[in-house]
Amino acid sequence: MGGSHIERLIQLLSRLPGLGPRSARRAALRLLKRREQLLRPLAEALQATDANVHDCSECGNLDSADPCAICADARRDRSQICVVEDVADLWVLERSRVFKGLYHVLGGVLSALDGVGPEDLRIVDLVRRAGAPEVTEVILAVSATVDGQTTAHYLHDRLAETGVLVSGLAHGVPIGGELDYLDDGTLGAALKSRHPL
Amino acid sequence: MGGSHIERLIQLLSRLPGLGPRSARRAALRLLKRREQLLRPLAEALQATDANVHDCSECGNLDSADPCAICADARRDRSQICVVEDVADLWVLERSRVFKGLYHVLGGVLSALDGVGPEDLRIVDLVRRAGAPEVTEVILAVSATVDGQTTAHYLHDRLAETGVLVSGLAHGVPIGGELDYLDDGTLGAALKSRHPL
Repeated sequence: MGGSHIERLIQLLSRLPGLGPRSARRAALRLLKRREQLLRPLAEALQATDANVHDCSECGNLDSADPCAICADARRDRSQICVVEDVADLWVLERSRVFKGLYHVLGGVLSALDGVGPEDLRIVDLVRRAGAPEVTEVILAVSATVDGQTTAHYLHDRLAETGVLVSGLAHGVPIGGELDYLDDGTLGAALKSRHPL
Repeated sequence: MGGSHIERLIQLLSRLPGLGPRSARRAALRLLKRREQLLRPLAEALQATDANVHDCSECGNLDSADPCAICADARRDRSQICVVEDVADLWVLERSRVFKGLYHVLGGVLSALDGVGPEDLRIVDLVRRAGAPEVTEVILAVSATVDGQTTAHYLHDRLAETGVLVSGLAHGVPIGGELDYLDDGTLGAALKSRHPL
């Protein structure tokens, strides 16, 4: 199959999410066909990213600068900290442009099954940041899964000492969603949190 | 979204087949999370592949050696040349272990729509190789598409001067395939090429 160099490349590519062995082979061939336009730029981009991108020491976001562009942005509302599991969730919120405060990336959720305890997450940093005088609210934007909600309860307890308002995302019918396709849990939550029109 | 380095990486990853913008973002995050195990090895594998892997000057296969491992293998049957469109097709045939001869990679098929003419494919090399005294058969393993069959007809004409036997793959019912799901063209070809049991 084209020698050990290509096989090694295919093996590494197949470890990327979304690429199986078959698509990794196609990707390797595409890279070899487009050396100038794709293979070399990708090798350089990987090295540049490795050398320049680091965790923000304040919020845990990934950025070339430390503190990151969001933490350093004077226009952001410093009274609100939105807690997310992962940088991917931070990106989703940034793309939607619905939140103008600061973030805090936990780096995962508590999980007895996967052996993730409080010391594996950026919780001490969060409690420290939440204790700053300008902070009035911490929004827990964690997944509506069992592990996510366990983490939310734990964070709520830990943040009690700071006296800050701790809130969570609302559950309900997705915008554009049809009731027909909704699960019972979401439907129940939407009914419970109903509001006068 | 994490600065220009990550954005550039995501943009390049999204140009790989099988990765859209969303999965490219996930891939970039996975790479940044696994720097030692994934990001750096991938950057090195890309450079090693770029530096070491080249087209085989004989058959057009991709390999670290020239001639490639298949062309150089004394155990391969040198009387048969299997013509494929692409290195991917060569890999598929090699994985199936059904062919023990040599290959010739065309580098595509003739296509009026995409502006691919005979001079864009490795046809002169094929005619030269087919003219060698040890070669008795050229098998055209091209796609059963309009462009593929046009290419097969053209190659048949060009190879006439060599006097070599030119053959094509059989059409018919795939092994394990159900007639119910078969298209009319394949069904017709299978019926026409029926054989006594």
